[in-house]
Amino acid sequence: MNRRDFFSSAALLGAAAAVGGSVKAESDSSACPTKLRLSSQLGIIPGDSIPEKLAKIKDWGCEAVEWGGDVVGCAEERRKMADDAGLLSSVICWGSHNGDMCSEDVSKRQPGIDDLKRAIEAAGILGCVGVIYVPAFNGQTKLNNFEIRQRCLEFLPEMGQFALAHNTKIILEPLCRMEAFFLRQVADGAAIARDCNGEAGPDGGISVMGDFYHMDTEETSQMGAFICGGPYMRHVHLAGGVAAPRRTLPGQNCTRFVDGFRGLKMIGYKYFCSFECGVDGDKMVEVPKSIAFLRDQWEQA
Amino acid sequence: MNRRDFFSSAALLGAAAAVGGSVKAESDSSACPTKLRLSSQLGIIPGDSIPEKLAKIKDWGCEAVEWGGDVVGCAEERRKMADDAGLLSSVICWGSHNGDMCSEDVSKRQPGIDDLKRAIEAAGILGCVGVIYVPAFNGQTKLNNFEIRQRCLEFLPEMGQFALAHNTKIILEPLCRMEAFFLRQVADGAAIARDCNGEAGPDGGISVMGDFYHMDTEETSQMGAFICGGPYMRHVHLAGGVAAPRRTLPGQNCTRFVDGFRGLKMIGYKYFCSFECGVDGDKMVEVPKSIAFLRDQWEQA
Repeated sequence: MNRRDFFSSAALLGAAAAVGGSVKAESDSSACPTKLRLSSQLGIIPGDSIPEKLAKIKDWGCEAVEWGGDVVGCAEERRKMADDAGLLSSVICWGSHNGDMCSEDVSKRQPGIDDLKRAIEAAGILGCVGVIYVPAFNGQTKLNNFEIRQRCLEFLPEMGQFALAHNTKIILEPLCRMEAFFLRQVADGAAIARDCNGEAGPDGGISVMGDFYHMDTEETSQMGAFICGGPYMRHVHLAGGVAAPRRTLPGQNCTRFVDGFRGLKMIGYKYFCSFECGVDGDKMVEVPKSIAFLRDQWEQA
Repeated sequence: MNRRDFFSSAALLGAAAAVGGSVKAESDSSACPTKLRLSSQLGIIPGDSIPEKLAKIKDWGCEAVEWGGDVVGCAEERRKMADDAGLLSSVICWGSHNGDMCSEDVSKRQPGIDDLKRAIEAAGILGCVGVIYVPAFNGQTKLNNFEIRQRCLEFLPEMGQFALAHNTKIILEPLCRMEAFFLRQVADGAAIARDCNGEAGPDGGISVMGDFYHMDTEETSQMGAFICGGPYMRHVHLAGGVAAPRRTLPGQNCTRFVDGFRGLKMIGYKYFCSFECGVDGDKMVEVPKSIAFLRDQWEQA
């Protein structure tokens, strides 16, 4: 058995539940091997209407759609569109709300919390895994890293409870330093989630995700990052890394995904990997090509 | 093959070089399996003199001694003592020099750099893997996290070159938030090392370590942390975690090491794991017991 075969072998998947003291698969992973469950934002998908785009996502073999913050207020309608297309809803990519919850201006905080709650309610209606939340992009707060972390621990536990009550989660998104210095690594996001959740641990309402584009800048190991994320992992963004230097469609630059996919297999990851990127060339040709590329990367992992 | 056997198997060691795109073993790990190479600081070792303590370290099956900053100025003498005892020197545990290199008071910086260079020279004489450096303990600088990181990237590359010229490295030590909020996770330290080293990557002069005590507070996965450290890993501190709540001798509280040791095996780690802790009870009894405990944990990994 050579190294590649070793890491591709069913034995590795079977052993996933043994990886890490704090990492557990929720089912017997040897009986139910982890698979690549694809999702996409609407932007890169051709079509003149949301239903047209959803039909394409389905045709191309994805299981889910990733919504933007504009879904708040029309969640029932979007849910019906997804249902009609035979798709699940992966997450709402929501953002930071101008960093208001972590603003030094305390008057901004409650309106941000109220809006985040509305997004959580929408996620509940849509059946989303979670709502992606960025505590603060660069320049959105005068609080320093220590203070932002303290602030997260103040308000996120209650938001996590609110999310759980709606059968969803808050998903912290580590970005790269050019966008958000506060949170840049999956391990850090996972530790914040753990600290927020207390005794509930990974079953609590705060979770984390990884974005291959940001990870290209910030992580030394895709696999290590995802193992640190472990049972707190609830979403993955797919995009080529900084070599472009911009978010490209997977396969359109030098970013490879095998190492990270190995990590996802090792933790028994069962949530979505979702396109958040641009496309060079004809979307009708390039997106299916990217999906085939990713499935091959997954096979190699 | 059950899960425990799987992770204990030679196949896993043989595959170590395949773990992580950026992780490589420097030799064929199937021919030369990773072993637990123990080292100790002098504090927990009984004896009325350094040579007496070194003899104990050797008798108890350790390979190396970890020196304190007091070794600067008498490195030749200590080198002879280690040689006479049949021991290697693992590292110099040096510290932050009051955070001077990252002080907002620029007049403090050069004296700190000069003293760090003297420690590096001593490490070269001793044949140490590296000099442990903490950029700033809490309260030692008014710079915020962003500014401290920028400052590290300003002066560490040159210090790394200086270290390489003395056949040693700077080893960044992530601590826990109670001691040093700036650097708390192995993945973060590894990323700083990578950014400092530029094209030299893991072959550059800046490296990272993990300390099981701090990791108990800050990391969600010992294994994930060490995989993120990967080829930048140059040292490990052994101590029980926060449950005590203080640094205890491994085996004297609930901290387990199997998950982290698995990570070290996966990256083909070949440097030292060194005691930095206290002891409850009779050192003559407890330290050998701890060594046996750690060797058993390594076997299980």
